[in-house]
Amino acid sequence: MPKRKKSRDQHPQPAFLFDLDGTLIDSVYQHILAWREALRALDIELSNWFIHRRIGMSDSLMLNACMRESGRRLDKKQMEKLQAMHTKAYMRHVGEVQALPGAKALLKQLTTLGVPWAIGTTSLRERAQKSLDMLGIGEEVPVITGDDVEQAKPEPDLFFAAAKKLKMDLEHCVVVGDSVWDLLAAQRAHALGIGLLAGGYGEDELVRAGAYRVYRDPEDLLEHLDEIGVKVEEEH
Amino acid sequence: MPKRKKSRDQHPQPAFLFDLDGTLIDSVYQHILAWREALRALDIELSNWFIHRRIGMSDSLMLNACMRESGRRLDKKQMEKLQAMHTKAYMRHVGEVQALPGAKALLKQLTTLGVPWAIGTTSLRERAQKSLDMLGIGEEVPVITGDDVEQAKPEPDLFFAAAKKLKMDLEHCVVVGDSVWDLLAAQRAHALGIGLLAGGYGEDELVRAGAYRVYRDPEDLLEHLDEIGVKVEEEH
Repeated sequence: MPKRKKSRDQHPQPAFLFDLDGTLIDSVYQHILAWREALRALDIELSNWFIHRRIGMSDSLMLNACMRESGRRLDKKQMEKLQAMHTKAYMRHVGEVQALPGAKALLKQLTTLGVPWAIGTTSLRERAQKSLDMLGIGEEVPVITGDDVEQAKPEPDLFFAAAKKLKMDLEHCVVVGDSVWDLLAAQRAHALGIGLLAGGYGEDELVRAGAYRVYRDPEDLLEHLDEIGVKVEEEH
Repeated sequence: MPKRKKSRDQHPQPAFLFDLDGTLIDSVYQHILAWREALRALDIELSNWFIHRRIGMSDSLMLNACMRESGRRLDKKQMEKLQAMHTKAYMRHVGEVQALPGAKALLKQLTTLGVPWAIGTTSLRERAQKSLDMLGIGEEVPVITGDDVEQAKPEPDLFFAAAKKLKMDLEHCVVVGDSVWDLLAAQRAHALGIGLLAGGYGEDELVRAGAYRVYRDPEDLLEHLDEIGVKVEEEH
């Protein structure tokens, strides 16, 4: 053990910054239909795939895209109403939502290995809390939500704030996400981006957005931690 | 008009064979959650993205994939129960489902241009009928469903049967679908495959599966019919 500790001090392990929805929690599809329901309540008809590909952006950027696509203008009050309706619709389906395979095991393994990790999610705290509870993530883990920063993804602010809490440089961190917005944020901050298929993007989309590697889900990532420079086994 | 008619006789227009869910109807995301609900009722936990990428296969191939992935064996009776629960869960959400943008206009335009078209869907008739009603598709249109053939997609049997009803060779047809299973079926039958993003696959996935062109949705396809050899305007 002492030998291993010393080796790790010489070559510090990278820290991991995780997105939440679609990366650790299987909630993207429920979010899509919740946004769809909220948009329809304001007579904005957009296709599910269009919403899907914009999940994970900040709410305001996403709603801008929806306004551009539909040709509708919304004022600040209507946008707040939309966000509230989305949260309400999502909360109605949150009982169906579960952690993705391997999510808890992956976080536990990182902790065991002494690899720092944190969460950076565009979601507002109210929506994110239920997911954090599912993963058993308590006060001891740095969690940055959309409420905490001026600009959410694809701005890298969320991940900058998360890295800061871990006292790490973001450019020495690994950003794990399921959407191209996570990977764009990673690229802009010179962090290593890892993509997961669990949010429903195709592998090529994630690679083209800058993913160094793409895994199916947290379980698959856990089985390949050594491919991203985490020293998993004792040295011989 | 007579001149145009003659020209068309010399160079017959291709016929169009359409998939239904995710291609003309925005129903893939509701189908995903309906399968998820049905699988969970049998204590089979699979991620939504995994189900998403297998929608559009025949039910039996899809359920084989689910069994392989989950390590569970299901007997014939359980598989039938699963299918029935999926239909029931989907029917509960069918009120939210709508035609994709441009779907009705595209079909109308093909009819106006004298281009034959038909529907080939893996869905069983019971589930498909609601979608056909939404599109205003009546008895006059050849519709081949999963009930009508021995083997559904990615076997090309559905499209073979649809082309036969139009009295066309399948290899002179254009197959339009949102999933790689449509495009695999098209390739196997030497038909021209066109992909639509409307089912939530990424563009590269569809191109790699053989799509000659990928459009966003039926509306986008309608605006680019001349790219696939349909004579849209009068000759000068």
